[in-house]
Amino acid sequence: MIVTISRQFGSGGREVGKRLADALGLEYYDKQLVAEIAKSTELNENYVSEVLKNGGYRNYVFSFGRSIPLIATTPSTITDILVAQQKIIKAIGEKGDCVIVGRSADAILKDLSPVRIFVYADEQSRVKRCRDRAPEDEHLTDKQLVKKMKEIDKGRRKLHELFSHYPWGDKDGYDLMLNTSDTTIKSIIPHLASLVCDFHNK
Amino acid sequence: MIVTISRQFGSGGREVGKRLADALGLEYYDKQLVAEIAKSTELNENYVSEVLKNGGYRNYVFSFGRSIPLIATTPSTITDILVAQQKIIKAIGEKGDCVIVGRSADAILKDLSPVRIFVYADEQSRVKRCRDRAPEDEHLTDKQLVKKMKEIDKGRRKLHELFSHYPWGDKDGYDLMLNTSDTTIKSIIPHLASLVCDFHNK
Repeated sequence: MIVTISRQFGSGGREVGKRLADALGLEYYDKQLVAEIAKSTELNENYVSEVLKNGGYRNYVFSFGRSIPLIATTPSTITDILVAQQKIIKAIGEKGDCVIVGRSADAILKDLSPVRIFVYADEQSRVKRCRDRAPEDEHLTDKQLVKKMKEIDKGRRKLHELFSHYPWGDKDGYDLMLNTSDTTIKSIIPHLASLVCDFHNK
Repeated sequence: MIVTISRQFGSGGREVGKRLADALGLEYYDKQLVAEIAKSTELNENYVSEVLKNGGYRNYVFSFGRSIPLIATTPSTITDILVAQQKIIKAIGEKGDCVIVGRSADAILKDLSPVRIFVYADEQSRVKRCRDRAPEDEHLTDKQLVKKMKEIDKGRRKLHELFSHYPWGDKDGYDLMLNTSDTTIKSIIPHLASLVCDFHNK
């Protein structure tokens, strides 16, 4: 069984993915993919992470409420990273029994019929979730935080276009879409896990 | 608990609604709403049904592969029907413990925090489902059937605009979205019902 989780920034998609993997006894992949891509491309891990976050569509990062320019990203570097990512995701998919968060894995692995989940929430819930899990040194205003969320999701949407003819977040590209606004994710996992199995066995 | 089911024509939304109501011990409302509206407005039931299906945006019905003109619908009749529908849905919502399919109940009952489900499927699955349940005397070509599906969904989308600022089928207006392509609805109901309870109790 392969489960892919696509998600709006701040919607708790990563938590859904981790907990689903635990509940179903599947391997969980998210940030370690970045490490593997960095190794394979011989690029810095933070740099790979930033490129994959914004796909080259954002040329600054938010920190301490200020915008800091990113190191220049060349088109060929982006291509290298995306090619490496695709290879690694395909290899993971071939092994099977995994949950992959983000990285257009829904589209990259479509021939393996993953159960494709999209996690989203209203803006207020996403802001709250970002605040709750923000690093101590992040001091963004609400306005800056909303801007950051939108920028990151814009990058995800753009990158997704490379791999799929379904727009990112368009229901037709997913089996299940889950609104986590005001929801305690932990409490929905057991039944969600069972429903995911139904979709896998359909 | 109130569950509302919005659905693309041919996606099996009605079956999801009926089976969920059975599984959860809730009252099920769909076509009997039309009867109540007809009674309350003193209009013919088939006529009310046609108006609610297309909201005045379609002025013919498909039958035997031919288009048959509908009786003229006046704006005031449509308004009467919609007002009656809204009152009846609110009364049902106040009683609680129900599943309501369609009729913008998700938006009309939003203050009662229903669990809002949207059911959809790819075109091929919807055509197949329509064929399987079509009346014996329906002889539409695939092209005509797809046209009919699109017309009906266009009517639903337009009518929904009257009641909600979320577009019909837009994820932000729902708690759960379910893709029934190639799915045997019966087999997903027990776990879906449990998940719906989680959303109700969140």
